Amino acid sequence: MLQAPQTAALLLIGDEILSGKVEEANLVVLARTLRALGIALRRVVTIGDDVDVIAREVAELSRTHDHLITSGGVGPTHDDVTVPGVAQAFGVPVELDPGLIAMLRDHYKERCTEGHLLMARVPAGATLETTESVRWPTIRFGNTWLFPGIPEVFRLKLPVLAARLAGGRPWVSHAVYTQMDEGDLKPLLDPIVAQHPEVSVGSYPKWSDPSYRTKLTFDGRDPEAVSAAVAAFVALLPTGEPQRTEP
Amino acid sequence: MLQAPQTAALLLIGDEILSGKVEEANLVVLARTLRALGIALRRVVTIGDDVDVIAREVAELSRTHDHLITSGGVGPTHDDVTVPGVAQAFGVPVELDPGLIAMLRDHYKERCTEGHLLMARVPAGATLETTESVRWPTIRFGNTWLFPGIPEVFRLKLPVLAARLAGGRPWVSHAVYTQMDEGDLKPLLDPIVAQHPEVSVGSYPKWSDPSYRTKLTFDGRDPEAVSAAVAAFVALLPTGEPQRTEP
Repeated sequence: MLQAPQTAALLLIGDEILSGKVEEANLVVLARTLRALGIALRRVVTIGDDVDVIAREVAELSRTHDHLITSGGVGPTHDDVTVPGVAQAFGVPVELDPGLIAMLRDHYKERCTEGHLLMARVPAGATLETTESVRWPTIRFGNTWLFPGIPEVFRLKLPVLAARLAGGRPWVSHAVYTQMDEGDLKPLLDPIVAQHPEVSVGSYPKWSDPSYRTKLTFDGRDPEAVSAAVAAFVALLPTGEPQRTEP
Repeated sequence: MLQAPQTAALLLIGDEILSGKVEEANLVVLARTLRALGIALRRVVTIGDDVDVIAREVAELSRTHDHLITSGGVGPTHDDVTVPGVAQAFGVPVELDPGLIAMLRDHYKERCTEGHLLMARVPAGATLETTESVRWPTIRFGNTWLFPGIPEVFRLKLPVLAARLAGGRPWVSHAVYTQMDEGDLKPLLDPIVAQHPEVSVGSYPKWSDPSYRTKLTFDGRDPEAVSAAVAAFVALLPTGEPQRTEP
């Protein structure tokens, strides 16, 4: 029996997402990063730039998951309130980190103002995480990691998670494409789902691709169990199916 | 004084989003639709295909917001559990709707199976909402609207919300683009934010566009208040700024 995977939650912070000004772009890359690490992303919550709401969510999500990643709200302006929110969640004050101050002064040189130094704010007791390839620190407080919301920077910093959270057994995933619709597939899928409880079976109809009608996915952390479920399902399909399989 | 806007929440349902198999695409279009209706999207929660989790979220989000939209999980296969989840949230049974059964039989004709008819499941007491342009019904239970997850179909059905929820005063939004960074902007922004409490001011650094460094947005439902905040901010900028404004 495989050990249950570690769990994670993602907290997306920003009025600009809820108003539709920007398209959220960090969920999918975090989901794929965690999955490759063998960590199950269980819940994603999107909220606005409000200290009390952030504090409540961080307290709840960090308590109920092994890892929490936040995205957004770590700049210096009035709408960047993630650091105060995380500090409030854990009942600690906000302080300026001397190491971050030194890095900011070195970066901005004579242009450095008090405004820039607000980017040195951390919840008191936080750890600054770096790797050889990611030199600008990521703020971590316990199991809670504070990532920037700008998609390019979010991606640049992801290797720090891989460096610190490695260890779980990754998932394997197979896909089967058919021309059948979900109504016809249901009686074939139900026994497969019942007989392979360790395999997660997904069914996704395609609206506008003529090469198939429904994609079935078979996911699990035991490769043999996944292969067995795929083989059992394919054996139930009528002549001419499936259209193709992956991998 | 403007009346406070109605509020909405979005519940995104699907293992495929949390595993990174698909990129979520419905949040941004719903956000823009609601905003044009004058409704404030306050919270988005993404969860997997689990009846109990869906029921808990639907109960909570429908109680704390004026409107709740769910996305995903309304097909006929084992991983489509939104209808049972919503029914559980409101303490009603799942039943087959005679009108939907007739539509499904008419659509699938002699190919129609018991599997297809599972798409006629509704929480008992639900209303089926249609418009002249959106003939296939959308299931509504009280303030909770069940939308399909397939992005093309989600978009096709959105006009039903506009037809039923119209009435709020929409937001207006202005943008100001500058070459200044957030650290330098902060002392200019703080008094504007303090003096224009009815205007929501956002600050968004750009990582890879040389035409500007930071975009400021000024949003509100009172056009004169928004224009006044923009004018007050622009008056504080140094010579050569802003790069441009919108609209």
